[in-house]
Amino acid sequence: MRTTVLLAVGLCLSSTAWATTVKEPIQPIAPAEVSDPAKVELGKQLFFDPRLSRSGFISCNSCHNLSMGGSDNLPTSIGDRWQEGPINSPTVLNSSLNLAQFWDGRAADLKEQAAGPIANPKEMAFTHILATDVLRSIPQYRESFKAVYKTDEITLDAVTDAIAEFEKTLVTPNSRFDLWLKGDAKAISAVELEGYQLFKSIGCVACHNGPAVGGNSFQKMGLVEPYQTKNPAEGVAGLTGKDVDRFRFKVPTLRNVELTYPYFHDGAYWTLEESVDVMARLQLGRKLSDDDIGKITAFLKTLTGEQPNFQIPILPPSTNNTPRPVPFE
Amino acid sequence: MRTTVLLAVGLCLSSTAWATTVKEPIQPIAPAEVSDPAKVELGKQLFFDPRLSRSGFISCNSCHNLSMGGSDNLPTSIGDRWQEGPINSPTVLNSSLNLAQFWDGRAADLKEQAAGPIANPKEMAFTHILATDVLRSIPQYRESFKAVYKTDEITLDAVTDAIAEFEKTLVTPNSRFDLWLKGDAKAISAVELEGYQLFKSIGCVACHNGPAVGGNSFQKMGLVEPYQTKNPAEGVAGLTGKDVDRFRFKVPTLRNVELTYPYFHDGAYWTLEESVDVMARLQLGRKLSDDDIGKITAFLKTLTGEQPNFQIPILPPSTNNTPRPVPFE
Repeated sequence: MRTTVLLAVGLCLSSTAWATTVKEPIQPIAPAEVSDPAKVELGKQLFFDPRLSRSGFISCNSCHNLSMGGSDNLPTSIGDRWQEGPINSPTVLNSSLNLAQFWDGRAADLKEQAAGPIANPKEMAFTHILATDVLRSIPQYRESFKAVYKTDEITLDAVTDAIAEFEKTLVTPNSRFDLWLKGDAKAISAVELEGYQLFKSIGCVACHNGPAVGGNSFQKMGLVEPYQTKNPAEGVAGLTGKDVDRFRFKVPTLRNVELTYPYFHDGAYWTLEESVDVMARLQLGRKLSDDDIGKITAFLKTLTGEQPNFQIPILPPSTNNTPRPVPFE
Repeated sequence: MRTTVLLAVGLCLSSTAWATTVKEPIQPIAPAEVSDPAKVELGKQLFFDPRLSRSGFISCNSCHNLSMGGSDNLPTSIGDRWQEGPINSPTVLNSSLNLAQFWDGRAADLKEQAAGPIANPKEMAFTHILATDVLRSIPQYRESFKAVYKTDEITLDAVTDAIAEFEKTLVTPNSRFDLWLKGDAKAISAVELEGYQLFKSIGCVACHNGPAVGGNSFQKMGLVEPYQTKNPAEGVAGLTGKDVDRFRFKVPTLRNVELTYPYFHDGAYWTLEESVDVMARLQLGRKLSDDDIGKITAFLKTLTGEQPNFQIPILPPSTNNTPRPVPFE
């Protein structure tokens, strides 16, 4: 017992010295810099406004719930008329750090992404024209858009720009691991540190690196061994039609991964332990011991950062001229 | 033009003097007094937690959306598997002032009410046992319940008690009308004041009175003329089986009525103007002029008070032992 404690202390001490001299493959997340608070506030209202959906029931926050790690914690999402979504909703937290948006990267950035679900018949099932008609009918929205964009028009471009600006504030700095990266040796435990060392030594960092611990490359799911799933998603091949792109997906961020269960593009795995096991086998060709899986899982839980911290938005009311939602028929 | 302005000023002056001497049938809303902040915080988390539903998608806030006047702004609500709810979701704002809960008053108080939707197969479609099983599986919830209720058990009684305690904080004081009631003659305009005088003189206050401007009696919908609706709700008769109770409903609060469209138990009317017209004809046997309807509507909009003002709750994550949601099959 005493030996273990001494060993742990030894690891902490040596790692501190080492953290200041060796460049780590993971960098701390920087806090959001808000240059236009009015735009962010407008984007926040839009993010929470279910009137951007046909039913008047589904908002961005329905599937990217900011109370729940920016995800819906479901294997695939529930859309208009309870349709089953095709793929797991990725977290919106830290999504500004992704090299592209959606699992297959088909949107270049958050602004382009935001337009997708509004008009997707399986998600919010609206049209961009009707969505902007709704906003245009509401004086408080007209004022907000005019204050931010200096024009009387409310365009889809402005709508998605404001949503993206809000989403850029949804970074989660100061996780315990970030504190450790910045030199606080006590911020993580000896076991968590061992987990991080394993995470590096067995090769997880090859894809999960950078400030978002992922999100910066596309990789084939099932590199060494094929991934078994009933989900028909083809990954990047769905866009390029190329066989080499089959099952190539954007590597998800591991930031806040403790909160963003279930895992993988099909949401088939609910526990981090199973997910670590699957990743190690399929991507790295390694069968990890339960002990090692436990350590890596402990490390992954140190990546939970400061969650969104703002007042709930109060949405401006509809008017007599606002197009009505169509929840049923 | 000058005459109108002078008249308006005259009305304001006289009304101030009068407000301090005459007892009004409507009283200001008192701000919430929070005696147990930890219980309120726990209740807020539960109110926003979709894991209290079978699907993991629907929370109390789905149909009593605190960004939208504590309602869903739909004629009737969307429940589990997109089932159509039987009746319009009443606002949760100021609901602690109601003499009973639900349109037919079948729950005595907020605590009793809170248990209903969780287990209603058309709403959250869960069971009380499963809901408490979910909470029990989450260490942070266990800690919060223990801190508030001083026991290791998590019971439905404690769950609904905490939700009710949070809901009691959802009062909306300091509407412009309340400021006027408290003596600020400039808080409402001359037209709004005329609307209030009409609201009293034609008899609306007979039912819509007290701090909540309603919520304190049951009345027959369609007293003078029958109310035409396809909605099968029978009101209190659904509980008593008595013919005299047919179409007797709890009088809804008019606080924040600008935000809680569409109106009536069937949510059939989207505008305040139509609703005022219907009420005057069916309940009071009066056909109002468009001018009078406009004035009463202007008055009703002065009843919008301070909306909920708190940080979005961050929900504690599920664990490997948490029962999984069943969004589809």
